Amino acid sequence: MSDLSLTQAMSTLRAVRRLRPDPIPEEVLERVLQAAAWAPTGGNAQPWRIVLVRDADAKARLGTLYAAQWTEFAKGYEARFEALPEEDVARERRTLDAGNYLAEHLHEAPVIAVFCFNPKMMAITDIKQPRVSVVGGGSVYPAVQNLLLAARAEGLGCVLTTLLCQVEPEVREILAIPEPWGTAAAIPLGYPIGTGHGPIRRRAVGSLVFEDTFGNKRGSP
Amino acid sequence: MSDLSLTQAMSTLRAVRRLRPDPIPEEVLERVLQAAAWAPTGGNAQPWRIVLVRDADAKARLGTLYAAQWTEFAKGYEARFEALPEEDVARERRTLDAGNYLAEHLHEAPVIAVFCFNPKMMAITDIKQPRVSVVGGGSVYPAVQNLLLAARAEGLGCVLTTLLCQVEPEVREILAIPEPWGTAAAIPLGYPIGTGHGPIRRRAVGSLVFEDTFGNKRGSP
Repeated sequence: MSDLSLTQAMSTLRAVRRLRPDPIPEEVLERVLQAAAWAPTGGNAQPWRIVLVRDADAKARLGTLYAAQWTEFAKGYEARFEALPEEDVARERRTLDAGNYLAEHLHEAPVIAVFCFNPKMMAITDIKQPRVSVVGGGSVYPAVQNLLLAARAEGLGCVLTTLLCQVEPEVREILAIPEPWGTAAAIPLGYPIGTGHGPIRRRAVGSLVFEDTFGNKRGSP
Repeated sequence: MSDLSLTQAMSTLRAVRRLRPDPIPEEVLERVLQAAAWAPTGGNAQPWRIVLVRDADAKARLGTLYAAQWTEFAKGYEARFEALPEEDVARERRTLDAGNYLAEHLHEAPVIAVFCFNPKMMAITDIKQPRVSVVGGGSVYPAVQNLLLAARAEGLGCVLTTLLCQVEPEVREILAIPEPWGTAAAIPLGYPIGTGHGPIRRRAVGSLVFEDTFGNKRGSP
């Protein structure tokens, strides 16, 4: 793996949606997968698996499913533009364009990594709360993030997508995923067409972190 | 931040449960929080917040809640030992001892970082699937993992815990967390008492990654 520092990797990990079809060398892919395997999971159960999709027919079928979901999602995304300041609209439209590109070309990515998880291997501590559960994701998405960071260090474009979870039964059939495994993410991987990773836009830490009680802003460090 | 490489950080990030009460310098904490802020989230919505708990009374109350949950959890954990080979029992008992230590001393950690999330800021694409939802976690746990990795790079012990989610109403009251925010993780942070981070034990990549269909082992790279 390239000697990228942790800080460099985290601060330049972008959603890269325009990917070249060129193959990924096996040793590069192996390092990216090893990174996922290192991630912590509840009770060290590692209740996730990756199906690495490289078969052209399977990628085409996933691509068709994804495009249909994206078309619906994009309508809602674009509808929000009306409420935005003009300078934000230009930026959001670039994101939408990149999303449109991905939806049309998902099958061209050399690899689509589909993360599966087994809820029976998890202690899902928020299952009884009167709101949607997220804790199962605590034993999957750290591995996803490790994979993304390692891909970034290798110069591979990547983006965390979850739209295919809306059509999980169809994905299950294409990839022969047995019960009780579910799907948590589909990550296209490939070398970028454009500049790839680089600067990211995020909220300031001060607006995300509170002191002792929710909403209580911290003083300057 | 230390110049730890991404690979070094990921491959030595352990669950460190024995923490010294010594304070964490503000500039160190700021770098760890910045790492969380860099993480990707769906639609870049960043639908999470951290409540940094340093108040002694609040930490004590969280510690009491945590210890009660841990006592119940540990019973089930220990019951599994009977089915394990002897060499595994010794290792699992060390983990249990470390867990017992954390349960008794959680309030001594200089900081407990409680991750909150807002489901209304999320597109939870698996909400209609006939299984527990995890996708909301896709916009929270990448930030958690970034925070853990940055803590490791700073030499700070840390561990991802979710037991307090079982008593979310009580946690909500202690930290004044308003609806519709929920809690996703509580992460004690502090300098390690012992050796801290180091080698980790994980399944081989070959047993976690399949090719094209679930269960289809990959050839050697």
